[in-house]
Amino acid sequence: MTRRIQLYDTTLRDGSQSEDINLTAADKLKIALKLDEIGIDRIEGGWPGSNPVDVAFFKEIANYHLKHAVISAFGSTHHPNFTADSDPNLRAIAESGARVASIFGKSCEVHAAEALRLDAARNLEIIGDSVAFLKGKLAEVYFDAEHFFDGYKHNAAYAQSALRRAHEAGADVLVLCDTNGGTLPHEVARIVAEVREALPGAAVGIHAHNDCELAVANSIAAVQAGAVQIQGTINGVGERCGNANLCSIIPTLELKFGGEYACLPEGRLQQLTAVAAYVSEVANIPPFSRQPYVGRSAFAHKGGVHVSAVNRKSSLYEHISPDVVGNRQRILITELAGRSNIVSLARRFGFHLDKDEPVVKGLLTELKKKASLGYDYAAAEASVELLILRKLARRGVREFFRLLQFRVLETKHDSEGEPVSEVSVMVDVEGVTEHTAATGRGPVNALDNALRKALLGFYPRLSEMRLLDFKVRVLTGAETGGGTASTVRVLIESGDSDSRWVTVGVSFNIIEASWQALADSVTYKLYKDEHARRAGSDGE
Amino acid sequence: MTRRIQLYDTTLRDGSQSEDINLTAADKLKIALKLDEIGIDRIEGGWPGSNPVDVAFFKEIANYHLKHAVISAFGSTHHPNFTADSDPNLRAIAESGARVASIFGKSCEVHAAEALRLDAARNLEIIGDSVAFLKGKLAEVYFDAEHFFDGYKHNAAYAQSALRRAHEAGADVLVLCDTNGGTLPHEVARIVAEVREALPGAAVGIHAHNDCELAVANSIAAVQAGAVQIQGTINGVGERCGNANLCSIIPTLELKFGGEYACLPEGRLQQLTAVAAYVSEVANIPPFSRQPYVGRSAFAHKGGVHVSAVNRKSSLYEHISPDVVGNRQRILITELAGRSNIVSLARRFGFHLDKDEPVVKGLLTELKKKASLGYDYAAAEASVELLILRKLARRGVREFFRLLQFRVLETKHDSEGEPVSEVSVMVDVEGVTEHTAATGRGPVNALDNALRKALLGFYPRLSEMRLLDFKVRVLTGAETGGGTASTVRVLIESGDSDSRWVTVGVSFNIIEASWQALADSVTYKLYKDEHARRAGSDGE
Repeated sequence: MTRRIQLYDTTLRDGSQSEDINLTAADKLKIALKLDEIGIDRIEGGWPGSNPVDVAFFKEIANYHLKHAVISAFGSTHHPNFTADSDPNLRAIAESGARVASIFGKSCEVHAAEALRLDAARNLEIIGDSVAFLKGKLAEVYFDAEHFFDGYKHNAAYAQSALRRAHEAGADVLVLCDTNGGTLPHEVARIVAEVREALPGAAVGIHAHNDCELAVANSIAAVQAGAVQIQGTINGVGERCGNANLCSIIPTLELKFGGEYACLPEGRLQQLTAVAAYVSEVANIPPFSRQPYVGRSAFAHKGGVHVSAVNRKSSLYEHISPDVVGNRQRILITELAGRSNIVSLARRFGFHLDKDEPVVKGLLTELKKKASLGYDYAAAEASVELLILRKLARRGVREFFRLLQFRVLETKHDSEGEPVSEVSVMVDVEGVTEHTAATGRGPVNALDNALRKALLGFYPRLSEMRLLDFKVRVLTGAETGGGTASTVRVLIESGDSDSRWVTVGVSFNIIEASWQALADSVTYKLYKDEHARRAGSDGE
Repeated sequence: MTRRIQLYDTTLRDGSQSEDINLTAADKLKIALKLDEIGIDRIEGGWPGSNPVDVAFFKEIANYHLKHAVISAFGSTHHPNFTADSDPNLRAIAESGARVASIFGKSCEVHAAEALRLDAARNLEIIGDSVAFLKGKLAEVYFDAEHFFDGYKHNAAYAQSALRRAHEAGADVLVLCDTNGGTLPHEVARIVAEVREALPGAAVGIHAHNDCELAVANSIAAVQAGAVQIQGTINGVGERCGNANLCSIIPTLELKFGGEYACLPEGRLQQLTAVAAYVSEVANIPPFSRQPYVGRSAFAHKGGVHVSAVNRKSSLYEHISPDVVGNRQRILITELAGRSNIVSLARRFGFHLDKDEPVVKGLLTELKKKASLGYDYAAAEASVELLILRKLARRGVREFFRLLQFRVLETKHDSEGEPVSEVSVMVDVEGVTEHTAATGRGPVNALDNALRKALLGFYPRLSEMRLLDFKVRVLTGAETGGGTASTVRVLIESGDSDSRWVTVGVSFNIIEASWQALADSVTYKLYKDEHARRAGSDGE
């Protein structure tokens, strides 16, 4: 018997309380549509009426026909100075256009008294009235029992009576919140079971925070004890240490319980890695590479022992097949790399090598040497590919261009002005010397502009290529003189209509490091297209 | 009754399998000494004999007298082609100088057959001989039963017999490894209990990986079921999704079980945040801000509702007091900030404001406007402090210098050369125009050098200040023209002998953004010292 667990996503509300997240209404809309696509059941959009971003979101999302998800509005029980039907926030929820709502209320006497200055009986009345009011206006109402587990440990009878009041007023799910994230899995299991015993007809949900790194375990423990709704966020974003990470909970429930639980509609799990990446991108936060299931490193193998075993049989060091969640295996090239790593990587690029060929040893030595200088080949696979190609291809990788000189000039007048960037570039392209100059929005952009200007006549397809992201990292703090004189590594991610690639540059000079990564990126684009064309014509 | 749990740290071995970690022998030494200081029991240094870094580490660490920790050497059971006492790796462990060792062996038939091409009986023999050999040479030997949980689920009897063989050969701890990280807490609890029942005299350990985001929960479940040793890493670093995070396990066991478990020596828990930061710094990996207990965001409050409540009573939204683990509470200034955030922040700087004062509203508007442009005030508290001070202080923050002009020139000849950086800076310092020029290792360093040259005669204490780190982030990808033309944010962390501070600059031009952060950093240093001097003389 498979049990369906309802997924309630709060990335747009609790998730946006993350220190490093600020979402616009347009961002929220994009994320909501993506969550609908993968088959999330409920999407909490925000607090209607609390701020212009959330007002705009609820207004805008009403124009879309969602395929699967239902939008939920968030708020609290009514303010003690109002009645439920005169409370501006509850009215805003009722009028938001959302068909369901979650409202939080106090289930802990101490919190009611200290945060709201309410006595215990009045708090229960407020819970009942608020739920009943919304239940009269919307299809479903969920009661988020804030600080439930702490409250329960302090006074179980009172915490239960808060739930009972919400239940009697018509709440569709009683959501037990571990607001401060300090509860342990065995406590969650026990308390959820006790709540279900005390309120047999009630549906229970779980809302966990990750302050003890246990939010996923707590959510799963709640489901095992009978909870039917899980509240969480994509990538586990959220205030402080974040919310329960749906990207870990969903595959664990679907893949690790022998079919006992289902979360997403059939066949959607493969979208998980893409959804996680999309949300990071829209929210403009760096993805966490070690993130379970969907992280860039989740199926990355570096140790020599592991790599040989993985080459023989993947499941030896992988708990699931990466493609089940839309991720992929990666074999890393690093300073510790063994020859089997090189062989694996070369195979991906179409070269079948033997571990004992001298060229493998030579490549390993060269990679190790550059890696020890700071070239992050684990991140910049396109740069590794170029390095291997330059070494392996008998005919050599075609040298599309060669730098003869560049000059970058930045001038800023007075403390308020923006500096002006002027760049000149001289390159040799197929025996012709091209000398161009350009301005730009900053020195790297000016360099990019000047280089493209020099090359575009020869290679018009460069116009499709875009730089998507770049990252700078100071490598060697105090050791090389330190401070602003430290070595920096620049990673540039570029893309065109059908792929993305990352290249690397290292120098104590940020302009030089950017130039290296930029030059590699352009070369990679030209190589890639030529290779595709050649492969295409071979096929005909 | 308090039960002591032994902490076995493998940051230097399994942790260094992280995609983004490469440790030198000097790095390993630094980390080992720090782990000893906080009171970790066992420190796994690496594989003696497998690579020059680990050889150097074992040689070097032998010269130190550790206060608490014992160094452990890692390796595998002997190779099938050797006997235990002729196996070069086991001999290297015996001769490494380490007093204890962990060796891993197969406890799953399938793995023995597929990874080592060994039959089941020969594998048991190898385990027994390897443990017995090392037991004759060292004080303690731990047997890491690789893939134990997967093996147990496949064939419990065989997995048990692998443990029994190691136990009979004298292994001091039988470490159950969830090598692929796919096991769930309820499975760990059951299997650990069954193992303890089958081998009543044996001490059991747990080695968990985080592939389901459950490594902390699994380690705790094992301890609750009777395990006495936990293997993990600082910050949860490690291959793929990482190892069990000791920074979450230690405080959870010590603080959340009513004194049932102790891990660190009395009074050391407060060092935890500092140790986590130190390891990140030495390993040169960006700290994960949402990391439980020790992360920068772990006690950071952003939501308006939370902030007012936290101002009233911290425990309302904090599961522990941050200082117990050496962390601190932070009230964030962001686009969503309420006036209570401003009041809290100003109070920290010694200004007692009322929420309703017009200056608070004005500050909020200004902060929101700049935050919407990309100024990350949550990260760059020193820049917020300057902004508030400039607004609040009646006398104004003294303007230590004013930029009149800078020029940055980068020249690179041919593709192999490094560019040369030349900078000229003209500033007004206390009515005097200073015009200086400098070269540097890159444009930011040259700017830094030229600015210091201009100011040092006026403010000699600038010589103490160092730039510790800088970060660059592309903010607005496709939206503002994108690519190399995107807006970038630069965060600079600076320090002197008694503090560290972070400042921010935002521009589409990386040089300009760096300049803003640099100028704020220098101003902050000068302001801070002046403030301290004034406070000092007030006190006399």
